[in-house]
Amino acid sequence: MPTADRRRYRVGVVQLSVATNRRAENLARAEKLVRAAADEGCELVVLPEVFATALNLPKSHEIAEPVPGPTTEWLAGLARELGVSLAAGVLERAGEHVHSTAVLLDDTGRLAGSARRTMVYDLEAHFLTGVTGARVIPTPLGRIGLALGYDVQFPEVLRGLFANEAEVILAPSVLLRPFAEPVRQMLLARAAENCAYVLFASATGENTLAGLTYMGRSAILRSPLAIGAYSRDFRKQQPVLAEADREEVLLTADLDLHELRRMRAAAPFLADFRRSSLGRAVTAATRPDDPTTAPTPSQDGGPADER
Amino acid sequence: MPTADRRRYRVGVVQLSVATNRRAENLARAEKLVRAAADEGCELVVLPEVFATALNLPKSHEIAEPVPGPTTEWLAGLARELGVSLAAGVLERAGEHVHSTAVLLDDTGRLAGSARRTMVYDLEAHFLTGVTGARVIPTPLGRIGLALGYDVQFPEVLRGLFANEAEVILAPSVLLRPFAEPVRQMLLARAAENCAYVLFASATGENTLAGLTYMGRSAILRSPLAIGAYSRDFRKQQPVLAEADREEVLLTADLDLHELRRMRAAAPFLADFRRSSLGRAVTAATRPDDPTTAPTPSQDGGPADER
Repeated sequence: MPTADRRRYRVGVVQLSVATNRRAENLARAEKLVRAAADEGCELVVLPEVFATALNLPKSHEIAEPVPGPTTEWLAGLARELGVSLAAGVLERAGEHVHSTAVLLDDTGRLAGSARRTMVYDLEAHFLTGVTGARVIPTPLGRIGLALGYDVQFPEVLRGLFANEAEVILAPSVLLRPFAEPVRQMLLARAAENCAYVLFASATGENTLAGLTYMGRSAILRSPLAIGAYSRDFRKQQPVLAEADREEVLLTADLDLHELRRMRAAAPFLADFRRSSLGRAVTAATRPDDPTTAPTPSQDGGPADER
Repeated sequence: MPTADRRRYRVGVVQLSVATNRRAENLARAEKLVRAAADEGCELVVLPEVFATALNLPKSHEIAEPVPGPTTEWLAGLARELGVSLAAGVLERAGEHVHSTAVLLDDTGRLAGSARRTMVYDLEAHFLTGVTGARVIPTPLGRIGLALGYDVQFPEVLRGLFANEAEVILAPSVLLRPFAEPVRQMLLARAAENCAYVLFASATGENTLAGLTYMGRSAILRSPLAIGAYSRDFRKQQPVLAEADREEVLLTADLDLHELRRMRAAAPFLADFRRSSLGRAVTAATRPDDPTTAPTPSQDGGPADER
């Protein structure tokens, strides 16, 4: 891993058809697109939520696996071989509980951090456990915040990432087609209000067992505010760097952390949030409440930074 | 006031050029557009934040007034004469403190409720006091939530309105032009994530004293999700009912609370929010923390509903 802080780098978002009960096939198609991303120079690649297994709620405990476990190891091997950082969603079994979890592997294959989805919808709540806690991982690619699909519909969940100065928010997702429009509007707002890049890696295709269609619409988004090159004035910039409809596809874009940091330094939003009693309350409420989600001491990435 | 619950009704949003130190002129132009709204059948009309006085921060304490006070009385007289509900922003003096406050007058001129802006930006914080607390007022026009301009950039502020089942969120605003794009994205998300109509009544024109330009871009927005007339399935709907650029103008649109309530009954978002520990924490943190913002017992609207 390069030790220098990378100010500009390319990212890839893999929109994957996530087929139920077809783990080997999902991994093979994912691998092909991750290799394509590495070929195109991406240093960070994001795959959808539960990309290997899909969600099969009644069988959740059976198909879930530990983190780290087989899927994490598979991702680690690919990250190490290709020299890219890799994030993806894994259906995680931890004792009696099952979580939808995002893992981040660095470009040596080390597990840099993980986060469990906070919000579960009513039917899911019989099978999955939500975990409150903002997970921001300091990396040479910037401060990376982890969220998962349904979380993006609840703005308070991502405010813990804002409080912890996440610069690049990764959102592996397995959301359904009827919610495509509101989710798109919310994702644009998440980038704007949290002054961050948002990498939304969405499942596409059909869950034929459940009769459900995934939303697709993966996107790489940024704040619509920038700072002029020779001034401190705000100016508009195009917030959509790349987006997909429903095809299985790799999206790529170039991030510029230097530009993002200049904008954040000029914008009053984080300071105003921190000064407000409500901002402080939200920050406190989004501190990880479950110590088992923190990386263990043997994982040398250290715990999520919670300054 | 009609006692029957109004399921469908027309609303007006007045985008007003808010001139500094020109109170009489601001009131005259506001009155003309409110009368036009009544002529067009609007039953609820919203004016911008501090529409009578503008913000003149160093002179805030001097130009502010009690609520109720002269501007509230002026609004009440107009509401009573025209038989419309009227909301607007008033620069409020309360002892040593100055607040940017939204007031809601019913169609008899009664003060149905008020709310003070939660978020103040760094420079403002020397002159204005932010107040935490979600204000939702049950009315025959639905459950009306009050917010103010800068609050819409902080999603957590409006989640207290969501928790209290606000159906129509009124946002009188005096935001600045450089923030027009992010604010527009956030407003669309506020309607989507809070499953509510959003009436954004924005100042336009120049603050020549301060060298600032207001953003305009007033809008009447709704959730992008609806329910099919003969099914329980979600379908897309156009979220922008009306919008302005920078002209002084009246926007109108027809709201349909019946449709909104059907969608909310089918959507799991509020139940999922309430079940989550983070949702409960945000709800607790947005309870009014200042009893002086609650309507007094002599105002028969009763306190904001906080169920």
